[in-house]
Amino acid sequence: MQVIYYSADQDAAAWVPGLQAALPQAEVRLWQPGAPLADYAVVWKPPQQLLDEQTHLKALFNTGAGVDALMKLQLPAGVPVIRLDDAGMSVQMAEYVCHAVIRHFREFAGYEADMGAGKWSFRKPRSRLDFPVGVLGLGVLGQRVARSVAQFDFPVNGWSRTAKALPGVRSFAGNEQLEQFLSASRILVCLLPLTRETENLLDAKRLSCLRPGGYVVNVARGAHLVDADLLSLLESGHLAGATLDVFRVEPLPKGHPFWQHPKITLTPHTSARTLRTESIAQIAGKIAAVERGERVAGLVDSNRGY
Amino acid sequence: MQVIYYSADQDAAAWVPGLQAALPQAEVRLWQPGAPLADYAVVWKPPQQLLDEQTHLKALFNTGAGVDALMKLQLPAGVPVIRLDDAGMSVQMAEYVCHAVIRHFREFAGYEADMGAGKWSFRKPRSRLDFPVGVLGLGVLGQRVARSVAQFDFPVNGWSRTAKALPGVRSFAGNEQLEQFLSASRILVCLLPLTRETENLLDAKRLSCLRPGGYVVNVARGAHLVDADLLSLLESGHLAGATLDVFRVEPLPKGHPFWQHPKITLTPHTSARTLRTESIAQIAGKIAAVERGERVAGLVDSNRGY
Repeated sequence: MQVIYYSADQDAAAWVPGLQAALPQAEVRLWQPGAPLADYAVVWKPPQQLLDEQTHLKALFNTGAGVDALMKLQLPAGVPVIRLDDAGMSVQMAEYVCHAVIRHFREFAGYEADMGAGKWSFRKPRSRLDFPVGVLGLGVLGQRVARSVAQFDFPVNGWSRTAKALPGVRSFAGNEQLEQFLSASRILVCLLPLTRETENLLDAKRLSCLRPGGYVVNVARGAHLVDADLLSLLESGHLAGATLDVFRVEPLPKGHPFWQHPKITLTPHTSARTLRTESIAQIAGKIAAVERGERVAGLVDSNRGY
Repeated sequence: MQVIYYSADQDAAAWVPGLQAALPQAEVRLWQPGAPLADYAVVWKPPQQLLDEQTHLKALFNTGAGVDALMKLQLPAGVPVIRLDDAGMSVQMAEYVCHAVIRHFREFAGYEADMGAGKWSFRKPRSRLDFPVGVLGLGVLGQRVARSVAQFDFPVNGWSRTAKALPGVRSFAGNEQLEQFLSASRILVCLLPLTRETENLLDAKRLSCLRPGGYVVNVARGAHLVDADLLSLLESGHLAGATLDVFRVEPLPKGHPFWQHPKITLTPHTSARTLRTESIAQIAGKIAAVERGERVAGLVDSNRGY
């Protein structure tokens, strides 16, 4: 069995031997133009040439959580594209979001700034009932995030394309319930896949639906959010702030107004990293399942785009 | 029925009418020297004179989570001292501790500082298996904190005076297992009651037992921690940092070395506030239970000190 690996970002020097160790029966190599035809490809943001050349693939594995970069390419017809189920990403996402939600709700940045200025301050406690959290997107990551936030007794709303029932989460589904979902939420967490339907979804019209003093946590893709609309709603005061991990262009370009904005907390696309060991174990398991002719979880629907 | 209220800190103008509304059959008044004898007293850090004068109490309610201030007074013999069960404090404590643990583990303060300086940085992800969290004290607050931290897949150790079995928590008990508990932990969360036994517990000897790169979160009482010992272990590098919400003297005195220490995050005793509405409802329920002659949860053992 032949396996090729390619990543635009990740450290091939660690992935290739890792995959080899997990798949002792296979020959694992780093893809280069003109490489021999392989049975499986493990990729992150591959070039079109890889897909064009590799005409014998039984499956294509995507090592990140989002397949939006892959969906922009011409995919080989009939080859299943498989996402990882979780591989340690959902707990990282739950951590990131809970940290951002708690930090905003409890005003810890303000307290720390006061203490840093030598000031022992008092702020009136706020009620969590006034901070319903809305989770946009209820896939593996969104479900884990919703459950984690609910554990801190916040009211939690969830929105997904098709209805999903989750304990402790008030569920909304489809375009017809999107505004209702937004109006019921004050802290909005975006965990959507990036597709034609979800690009620019967080624009002035949608963000204005959030409750006054709204807050945006974007951990999905930069292209979900219309940057200028976020800035004007922060300016008008309808939104109180945002925590952003993803941007339209990454690294965030110099001179972008998000840099040093007093109401925006920035992190450099670090909310949930692909963990190599967990991912490799999962890919090896899925390859074994494909070889046995079994159905594999994480199959991407290219019409849906995720 | 007569009820008196006294607090060194809280807003009597809100508590007295709140208690009155919850106890329509009672006469609720703010305690003043020479006040008529009452059946119940609801107090936070009362003066000795209140206890000396009120010789007909059926029960004494403490509105904070810790009764250490009360235990330093001469208490009326035979009068049950009752703590609140939770009253919204444990979820606040879980929030505070999870925020501090995640912020340290994920290096969010470092990322935010980098981004604030216009720098898109990369830090090698750390494994949560290298950050076992030890919760000192497994009362109502400690149990909730342990459960919340475990939900983020950290290994969790718990220590209590007497053995407690909690799902997902490796339990240690008694003085003979304290060092073993500390050696198994890297992030230490102090949630102990303050008693003669626990005062100055977190000294150089005990803190040195933590794993290298240890981290201290103190949300109990300032007197649990020997300030100078924390500072030297931060200096030596054995400890990586601390988040402190409580101090020997509050507000933290000007010139104290904790102010602006680069490895210490400070908050002004805000980890878990007594929530008035929840507390009043609980006190009213407990008074009704005492009147019916029932056993009431939260009874303080004055020998044990909590």
